[in-house]
Amino acid sequence: MADELDIPESHPRYESLLTRHRIEAGVEKGITSKQGLIAEGRGEAFDYLLGERTLESAETAERVAAAHLLLADRPVLSVNGNVAALVPGEIGELAAATGAEIEVNLFNRTDERMAAIASHLREHGAGEVKGLDADGRIPGLEHERAKVDADGIESADVVLVPLEDGDRAEALGEMGKTEIVIDLNPLSRSAQVAAVPIVDNVLRAVPNITAHARELDEESDATLEAIIAEFDPNAALQAAEQAIRSGDLK
Amino acid sequence: MADELDIPESHPRYESLLTRHRIEAGVEKGITSKQGLIAEGRGEAFDYLLGERTLESAETAERVAAAHLLLADRPVLSVNGNVAALVPGEIGELAAATGAEIEVNLFNRTDERMAAIASHLREHGAGEVKGLDADGRIPGLEHERAKVDADGIESADVVLVPLEDGDRAEALGEMGKTEIVIDLNPLSRSAQVAAVPIVDNVLRAVPNITAHARELDEESDATLEAIIAEFDPNAALQAAEQAIRSGDLK
Repeated sequence: MADELDIPESHPRYESLLTRHRIEAGVEKGITSKQGLIAEGRGEAFDYLLGERTLESAETAERVAAAHLLLADRPVLSVNGNVAALVPGEIGELAAATGAEIEVNLFNRTDERMAAIASHLREHGAGEVKGLDADGRIPGLEHERAKVDADGIESADVVLVPLEDGDRAEALGEMGKTEIVIDLNPLSRSAQVAAVPIVDNVLRAVPNITAHARELDEESDATLEAIIAEFDPNAALQAAEQAIRSGDLK
Repeated sequence: MADELDIPESHPRYESLLTRHRIEAGVEKGITSKQGLIAEGRGEAFDYLLGERTLESAETAERVAAAHLLLADRPVLSVNGNVAALVPGEIGELAAATGAEIEVNLFNRTDERMAAIASHLREHGAGEVKGLDADGRIPGLEHERAKVDADGIESADVVLVPLEDGDRAEALGEMGKTEIVIDLNPLSRSAQVAAVPIVDNVLRAVPNITAHARELDEESDATLEAIIAEFDPNAALQAAEQAIRSGDLK
């Protein structure tokens, strides 16, 4: 989805310019926080070291993520400020392709940001957006960080948490949920605790998961389970770390 | 300089918390821009990969930088928004130790930010702050980016440019100036074109240069020239790249 950026997709810096453009729009709309901008910069550096491409190991993880979302009884896509700013339309498409719910979940929760993000997602085609009720809790986190919807993340079996904070990723794992994490730092705690760590840029990862979900949509549960069973999260993390270490860094 | 952060320097995350604290204060004062926050995040990621420590090769480069500043006829410290937010007092101390001028030079120049940064530096002990006259130009850059002071950067022989944009670093080099660049990405164009690339966090680098300058203050020109002659910028960059590649990344 090209949004309102007026340059061709073939431009060598297209993805980078689109990212910058959407993040700046996010700041103007009150969606992206100061911490979100710093986090964006951290992601840029790791993506640069990875060569700004989807590793084969990440592509595999994205396929496994699609299988998990399709097999799940109650899949939820957790959306924070940066995710909403960067891939608002792509999250809606992934939800539609997998039957997942969308829930806004912020590290720095304020009513204004919650509302701004929900309306931004709806403007980009999302249906129902959860997270505003906040009638559920994640055990082990302090009050504001713990808030979720009872019929959303609290009762989900599979949760996609792109760009998630380490504490919350760990707490969600302890609730027994199958966690799919998208994080460009293979050594972040979030990536380390995930059942499916995807070391890739959300701009590439989310549409890739959607494409895999569409392709796998007609497959049997046994086929999806076989795809999942073959996956080794530690091998995926090691491949990403290896790419950072041995890449030509240009 | 501890600023108003109320935790002991022995705290394991002291530097990181201090950085965060100063950057947030910079945003509130109108010193740090959106681009500055993203750049801060990029720096954090590279510093993480370097192990958040000063490499031996960086310590050497900091000593060479001190020798250059002491030998210079007209040394200038170029200060942008992030430098002002992160090391306002430390820049004043380096200027005092080396007899260098301080000049504010912004990638996104506005009168408000120029004034806010100059007054922030003065509050932290800086004497005269240049950059507001803007009666000089760097050839080869578009209008706003090219503005400098005629009796500051334009006529400087040695310039310290921490966290500088690649285009301007290149243009300053083409003016024949000896450039000292502080940049955590050893492959950035700024680091690559510098006579003295310092791959280190500005919070560590600037006080280190000051300490070396104080120590070298009584040395003869011949001794300072010998320190400079021994330095190989490419070897320094390679050592930093090697540290990123082979570090344990934790």
